[in-house]
Amino acid sequence: MNGGSSDEPGLVQLARLIQVRCLERGLTLATAESCTGGLIAHLLTEVPGSSDYFIGAAVTYSDALKRGLLNVPGELLRTGGAVSADVAIAMAVGCRSKLGSDMAVSVTGIAGPDGGSPEKPVGLTYVAIADAAGHDVRCFVWSEGRSGNKRRSAEAALTLLLERLA
Amino acid sequence: MNGGSSDEPGLVQLARLIQVRCLERGLTLATAESCTGGLIAHLLTEVPGSSDYFIGAAVTYSDALKRGLLNVPGELLRTGGAVSADVAIAMAVGCRSKLGSDMAVSVTGIAGPDGGSPEKPVGLTYVAIADAAGHDVRCFVWSEGRSGNKRRSAEAALTLLLERLA
Repeated sequence: MNGGSSDEPGLVQLARLIQVRCLERGLTLATAESCTGGLIAHLLTEVPGSSDYFIGAAVTYSDALKRGLLNVPGELLRTGGAVSADVAIAMAVGCRSKLGSDMAVSVTGIAGPDGGSPEKPVGLTYVAIADAAGHDVRCFVWSEGRSGNKRRSAEAALTLLLERLA
Repeated sequence: MNGGSSDEPGLVQLARLIQVRCLERGLTLATAESCTGGLIAHLLTEVPGSSDYFIGAAVTYSDALKRGLLNVPGELLRTGGAVSADVAIAMAVGCRSKLGSDMAVSVTGIAGPDGGSPEKPVGLTYVAIADAAGHDVRCFVWSEGRSGNKRRSAEAALTLLLERLA
């Protein structure tokens, strides 16, 4: 909301395209969000009629909720940390099975300004997707501040969904 | 995101105050969102350090997720409908127990433009809160379009949280 409003109509436009493609294919969607904090779900539900395909989201800010709501194995969180490719994949796969959607997209990252380290800098973000065909994961490092990093992560998630639906 | 950006710095400011008060009191918070679609969680997580008290959200757009993620009784959904005071309370109480937070706020409503009826018009929204002391619920009818209705509902939820924390 702070300093990022100019690109938001574009993000809602991506959400609109995802809705059209999901409805064409009869697919339901859910999101599993850590650092984006619900922004992806908010964008998807800006579009009228989104309840016809979007079933909901698990915003799992804490590790306990990643385990409890998404069945992310505690071992993965301990060994690789919450911000890792394996946890992103586990969140997407767990979201699909626990929430019961055809497709799921997940995001885990370090929005900042705190929480970074030499190995895992602020802005490091993993985006994963899961569907009946399997899963995919991407890694990004943003440098646009907390609010901007959230928006870039949401944009990456929406873009990955559209690619997967192409 | 569409036409509502002017009031968003004000909403993030409310989120900032909630964070200060929760941290002062050592309380954790979670949200249970239907028509707001994750917007409240997004606003709360715009503030740096929100992971110190905000644990996450269940965005339950579908009735199945209201039952599955929040333990809302199917009987309540059948008799009163998803947009009712009883379901709002059940969402907040269920969120607190299922997600494991000290406080929880919930929103269920009809964002529009479709889904309204003479008894339950577009814009009808219930906001509930649950904490160790019990629960509270409020009813509103907004008339600002889908995007504006989501924002007004989020603002009402944040305001109710602040009142409860006063």
